[in-house]
Amino acid sequence: MLEIYDTSLRDGSQMEGISYSTEDKLNITQKLDELGIDYVEGGWPGSNPKDIEYFKKVQELELENVQVVAFASTRRAKVAAAEDKNLQAVVDSGVDVATIFGKTWDLHVTDALKTDLDENLKMVEDSIKYLVENGIEVHFDAEHFFDGYKANPDYALEVLKAAERGGTATLVLCDTNGGTLPSEIRDIIADIQDKVETPLGIHAHNDSDVAVANSIAAVEEGVHHVQGTINGYGERCGNANLSSIIPNLNIKYEEDFNCITDNQLFKLTEVSRYVSEVANLTPPTHSPYVGDSAFAHKGGIHVSAILREPETYEHVKPEIVGNQRRVLVSELSGKSNLVYKAEELGIDLDDENTDLKAVLDKVKELEHQGYHFEGAEASFELLVEKAAGRYEKLFQLEGIRIITEKRGEINPISEASIKVTVNGEKVHTAAEGDGPVNALDKALRKALRRFYPTLEEIHLIDYKVRVLEGKDGTAAKVRVLIESGNGHETWGTVGASTNIIEASWQALVDSIEYGIKLKSDPNEQ
Amino acid sequence: MLEIYDTSLRDGSQMEGISYSTEDKLNITQKLDELGIDYVEGGWPGSNPKDIEYFKKVQELELENVQVVAFASTRRAKVAAAEDKNLQAVVDSGVDVATIFGKTWDLHVTDALKTDLDENLKMVEDSIKYLVENGIEVHFDAEHFFDGYKANPDYALEVLKAAERGGTATLVLCDTNGGTLPSEIRDIIADIQDKVETPLGIHAHNDSDVAVANSIAAVEEGVHHVQGTINGYGERCGNANLSSIIPNLNIKYEEDFNCITDNQLFKLTEVSRYVSEVANLTPPTHSPYVGDSAFAHKGGIHVSAILREPETYEHVKPEIVGNQRRVLVSELSGKSNLVYKAEELGIDLDDENTDLKAVLDKVKELEHQGYHFEGAEASFELLVEKAAGRYEKLFQLEGIRIITEKRGEINPISEASIKVTVNGEKVHTAAEGDGPVNALDKALRKALRRFYPTLEEIHLIDYKVRVLEGKDGTAAKVRVLIESGNGHETWGTVGASTNIIEASWQALVDSIEYGIKLKSDPNEQ
Repeated sequence: MLEIYDTSLRDGSQMEGISYSTEDKLNITQKLDELGIDYVEGGWPGSNPKDIEYFKKVQELELENVQVVAFASTRRAKVAAAEDKNLQAVVDSGVDVATIFGKTWDLHVTDALKTDLDENLKMVEDSIKYLVENGIEVHFDAEHFFDGYKANPDYALEVLKAAERGGTATLVLCDTNGGTLPSEIRDIIADIQDKVETPLGIHAHNDSDVAVANSIAAVEEGVHHVQGTINGYGERCGNANLSSIIPNLNIKYEEDFNCITDNQLFKLTEVSRYVSEVANLTPPTHSPYVGDSAFAHKGGIHVSAILREPETYEHVKPEIVGNQRRVLVSELSGKSNLVYKAEELGIDLDDENTDLKAVLDKVKELEHQGYHFEGAEASFELLVEKAAGRYEKLFQLEGIRIITEKRGEINPISEASIKVTVNGEKVHTAAEGDGPVNALDKALRKALRRFYPTLEEIHLIDYKVRVLEGKDGTAAKVRVLIESGNGHETWGTVGASTNIIEASWQALVDSIEYGIKLKSDPNEQ
Repeated sequence: MLEIYDTSLRDGSQMEGISYSTEDKLNITQKLDELGIDYVEGGWPGSNPKDIEYFKKVQELELENVQVVAFASTRRAKVAAAEDKNLQAVVDSGVDVATIFGKTWDLHVTDALKTDLDENLKMVEDSIKYLVENGIEVHFDAEHFFDGYKANPDYALEVLKAAERGGTATLVLCDTNGGTLPSEIRDIIADIQDKVETPLGIHAHNDSDVAVANSIAAVEEGVHHVQGTINGYGERCGNANLSSIIPNLNIKYEEDFNCITDNQLFKLTEVSRYVSEVANLTPPTHSPYVGDSAFAHKGGIHVSAILREPETYEHVKPEIVGNQRRVLVSELSGKSNLVYKAEELGIDLDDENTDLKAVLDKVKELEHQGYHFEGAEASFELLVEKAAGRYEKLFQLEGIRIITEKRGEINPISEASIKVTVNGEKVHTAAEGDGPVNALDKALRKALRRFYPTLEEIHLIDYKVRVLEGKDGTAAKVRVLIESGNGHETWGTVGASTNIIEASWQALVDSIEYGIKLKSDPNEQ
């Protein structure tokens, strides 16, 4: 099996917008263990107390597959390894495995480190040797290796040999700036392959949009250790995306390129989405293998074929990576989409009570009016229920009034009042909000909460507005897409109108009705 | 030069969430022309009235580089090409170039097309021949070529030869399911290279996260025509990303791999962000080359080194692709960009009266708040005028009140009242509209019309709303982009706030102030 080394918690956390708590890092470590990852780079024990705390607490986790790795640079110039604070911190962190990064590009040694080339060699050798003598397995990250090798191949190679003398377990070749292309990766690895004894690793960045290809090319050239991050998170354009590399290697090559077991691969989609949740980033919708759209089919022609023989339009079976096929209902839809879609939602449209054509006509009519059921499956489900006559209202709207007031240059205030009838009882209430739609949302919830306590759990995740035809300026027709969740599930709803309040209202009502229905319908649990 | 073929408007529009208006498609075509793209696949003339309208209107554009391409499948089985509606629609669309896609995977011929292998060969040859005889340059998309070749190499090759007999200009090898890896792409292309006379093209999908690498590998193997989409938009995991392929080929290879000129490459970032704006998708922050974070460096060790020698931490210079380095400590990077942009707008920021730093700080502050000046040059120009102290208000806002009222299930009514002071005179008026923003727009115009009669000529062309961070649902921050025109010119303005009314107000006021200023400023005529 190949070694998979995840640096989501170190290099990955360099990404703009990511800032993990110690708890986050421990949870992610646990998840990566379930995925069958071999190494998890937890952070720099030397750099900050947060990381020190992580290395302390991570020892309490019961990990089956993961070995936790501490990261550090080579010792300072002209300082004994034993005297170097960072290396000492690695020893004190109690890890069994560490990764040391060192310069291999001569330009960086002289300009960034401001030391001479020989001292840098000693720094690499000493640092590794010191940790090995302390019973630690060491991997060496050869920073800027490919750029360094292109600039000065002899020196770059000398650095690798220094690391070997130090006793490193792996020579990890880093494309730190992410500028190297697959053909260069191949040539350079082939070039040095027989000049070193130690097994090689690859650490790629995605600045040229080929980090996954570079990692695979390296493996084809004999590299046995692959570094990257879940979802490809990382600084600038990110690190090599393990969520793509792992399935590529597991599914598309001979067994000896396997990284994890089939049962672990089945967890890939779940882990990818878990990490994006913890990172508080929107899950990567269009990501290969794990994205929500990775196996989503829109083209009308396709669908009937897909239902007959999936492999004709899918490069792998979505189930293998724990993802699922989705058929999108859109203008291009035919009857087959509709029936498949309905089945997917657990609605049987084939029973004689349902007028299939009536449902399809309704869908097409609404789509013509600007409704869009992609990403609005909840509205679609409610629509089908209505068309099939299996739907009952949760409340009757009597009226709404929303007032937005702005005085001078200060920000406006929005207030909504609403009057509804629920179970024959009239409720009249009001709320303020950030803008008219937010005020309306709050007022509606306030009015219904007493009757539907589960409403508490339902919250809005995303609110999108799309203007359909620009021609009429501010009077143009708008489509509102709302994504809601209750902690366990998420669902999308849609509304369309020339009045953004009306469009938002429709999407809001669907969102809440679907959420409450979900809770009260045992079949959905 | 290599041929670059963009299918953003056809294959790209298959992406979940994208639905372009005809106006959107024309605007994108114009932008792609500025980028120096050779071919733009506009749609299927046979499929729907929207596409027919596009092909009609696109003939009115003055395009320097782009050839507009119509897309269609091969003729139906057992039907003469001349009788086939789709092929007829291509001829009627008035294009000089068309792309025909046909099956190369035997399984698809028998199972999806439900015809025999020989008939499929005839369908390919006839369809191409028919269009060629009608004076149209034809490219052949060999659908599922790589999968087909692996399943039945002889038949896949026969299909290519049938296309050659038909007189195709290019044999475009499609990895339709996106499941092929670079090494397979190389082997298969090398394999067929000398078995066909016609130049080859590549059309890759990103389901294995290697579409960019596959396209480059194909070019290294001698392919001269590359298909893809801006930002890699497309069905499932998207198409090959031209925003990455073009700079990779232009910058990292010998001249004969160039796709566009240096001046065109400089527009890459602008075009990428423009397309995402029109698609109403969040601009791809971490995308290679064009992403906002593509050259973003976090503080610390890096920074000083980067400022001394950028190439030590950047694989290419950001300016080459019209992007910019983002280093927290330095506003130098932004300054040149600002001056460049201002010059573009005919504003001289180099005169000693202008406090360049003040202007820059203001821009940075607003961009941080979510303002976005791509597609909002009018707001940018007003901003510069304000920061440079060369701006005077047209009116003083006293107050606004907008009421939206909905009774039962009927559509709501929106009414706005506004109070402003113009030339020391108080005006208090009101108007009804289609939604709160439209009502506000009408009321403001009503209040100002008497003082600024040229307002009559200013009208809104487009109104777009984008939610910036979805996390807070309906309370999320929104950005409003408005496009306005006066018959001779069009201009864009922007507003941002948690309250959509406030954001719209800001964009509206800029739109009207800029329009009136335009009329009254002789230099602008």
